[in-house]
Amino acid sequence: MDSLIPQYGGNLFNIENIRDRVCVNVSDVRDPYAMQHLVDGQELLFNLAGQTSHLDSMREPETDLEINCKSQLSILETCRHVNPAIRIVFAGTRQIYGKPKYLPVDEAHPLHPVDVNGINKIAGEMYHLLYCTIYGVRCCVLRLTNTYGPRMRVKDARQTFLGIWLRQIIEGHPIQVFGDGTQQRDFNYVDDVVEAMLLAASSDRAVGKVYNLGSSEIVSLKDLATLIVAVNGGGQYETVPFSDELKRIDIGDYYSDFHKIEVELGWRPKVNLREGLMRSLEYYRSYKKAYWE
Amino acid sequence: MDSLIPQYGGNLFNIENIRDRVCVNVSDVRDPYAMQHLVDGQELLFNLAGQTSHLDSMREPETDLEINCKSQLSILETCRHVNPAIRIVFAGTRQIYGKPKYLPVDEAHPLHPVDVNGINKIAGEMYHLLYCTIYGVRCCVLRLTNTYGPRMRVKDARQTFLGIWLRQIIEGHPIQVFGDGTQQRDFNYVDDVVEAMLLAASSDRAVGKVYNLGSSEIVSLKDLATLIVAVNGGGQYETVPFSDELKRIDIGDYYSDFHKIEVELGWRPKVNLREGLMRSLEYYRSYKKAYWE
Repeated sequence: MDSLIPQYGGNLFNIENIRDRVCVNVSDVRDPYAMQHLVDGQELLFNLAGQTSHLDSMREPETDLEINCKSQLSILETCRHVNPAIRIVFAGTRQIYGKPKYLPVDEAHPLHPVDVNGINKIAGEMYHLLYCTIYGVRCCVLRLTNTYGPRMRVKDARQTFLGIWLRQIIEGHPIQVFGDGTQQRDFNYVDDVVEAMLLAASSDRAVGKVYNLGSSEIVSLKDLATLIVAVNGGGQYETVPFSDELKRIDIGDYYSDFHKIEVELGWRPKVNLREGLMRSLEYYRSYKKAYWE
Repeated sequence: MDSLIPQYGGNLFNIENIRDRVCVNVSDVRDPYAMQHLVDGQELLFNLAGQTSHLDSMREPETDLEINCKSQLSILETCRHVNPAIRIVFAGTRQIYGKPKYLPVDEAHPLHPVDVNGINKIAGEMYHLLYCTIYGVRCCVLRLTNTYGPRMRVKDARQTFLGIWLRQIIEGHPIQVFGDGTQQRDFNYVDDVVEAMLLAASSDRAVGKVYNLGSSEIVSLKDLATLIVAVNGGGQYETVPFSDELKRIDIGDYYSDFHKIEVELGWRPKVNLREGLMRSLEYYRSYKKAYWE
């Protein structure tokens, strides 16, 4: 299910070579009737629907609330009434921690979000855990960090800065690094995230739990830009100052402690940053037509 | 401003003897246009509007979300655009802590709400703190525990069990104590809460802060019922089992650590439980016509 809202990440080209094996329903999670029909009889629900732009959540807080709170509650109400035996994996976010008080950030880190998106994503994950405790709807929450790879939105910086960087370098423009580039981050290649989702959906131990995803490869944005230039075999980056709007919701350094999912579900990322960036650049170079042209 | 929704707490009799000194606007916080007009030019906003029933939040989660999340965001958006210099005191709740992990519960206690109301109240208070940090709208959050006294809803158990107890004893019925009556609680008399709100609104130190209210008089529900019978000069109580619906959202023992507001704002409760119950019983005995007859 995807809303195909043009500003969001949906793109039918992403599934072109498996189109005969999947059924896509175009509708919005804010539509409770569609959801009722779609949830009925399903075994698993990978609940990745969300407004993910931090900046958009400040500009249009009500839209963020509609999608990240109200729709989540409505999905869960639907599940408990129509299909209480369903298993749900909810895509949470490291954004709920806000500016880290310590690093790496584990699941017990206090929640001090710096934007409306972070607050609403807290509500979204708490609804899931509550419906698990109270109604027995089996949910698991994964708190994602920066996910990247083929098939994401790279047209602009709306959902991730790394997306637009890939486009910039492929188009021969300098990568624009906001701030001084010393901010540290961790990244997960999309295949590793998919594997975490499958593990979370199939392990009984995961029910009612919250897990951080993350990577032990921690890089500054500058070093990441340098690596992209190297993997690309050319290009350059430049640092540009934060806008005020961006600066006030920036979280500084962030990287996750993902020990818990490693111990409990046996997950750890397999694709290193160099490899992941190589695959991503190759993909977008081949298919740029479908992503920004 | 009050919505005068019949199931909620509004009652015009409450302000009968000050009616010529206050201006009441009947409208709903879900109405953004009314709010825009009402906020304009005001110095202080005591933001006590909310759906407060835990059980109702489970039966109608979307209504709770509309009032406790969406409307709060809309109030804050209105303030930042129309009147960014306003001071706001937001009525939070101890419900956001869930079942205490330790006692007494201080402000650093983790947030693990046991019902939809608790989750939405977290979002409500986080929006306030965020708008304070990002836009400079000066807010303070008070996390209220059980507030009681004259002028509350005592007709039924919708908002507080203590309300219906007062009605039961006055009507000569036994007080119905849910569970085994050993659950511990703390209570604040309404005048003490009003004083905390005034302090929070007038102290610069309170801006951007969260404070627990609470009392050092901690009683079990059984002892509270016994005290009411004594203060009333007659009557009795009985224990009745929890319904499943109530049991699963019960938080067990709870009482607050209110050291922070004591140190920073010089607040502590002045009206002890015996005195508060006496005043309350006297009030409802005199004016029962306005509250349930």
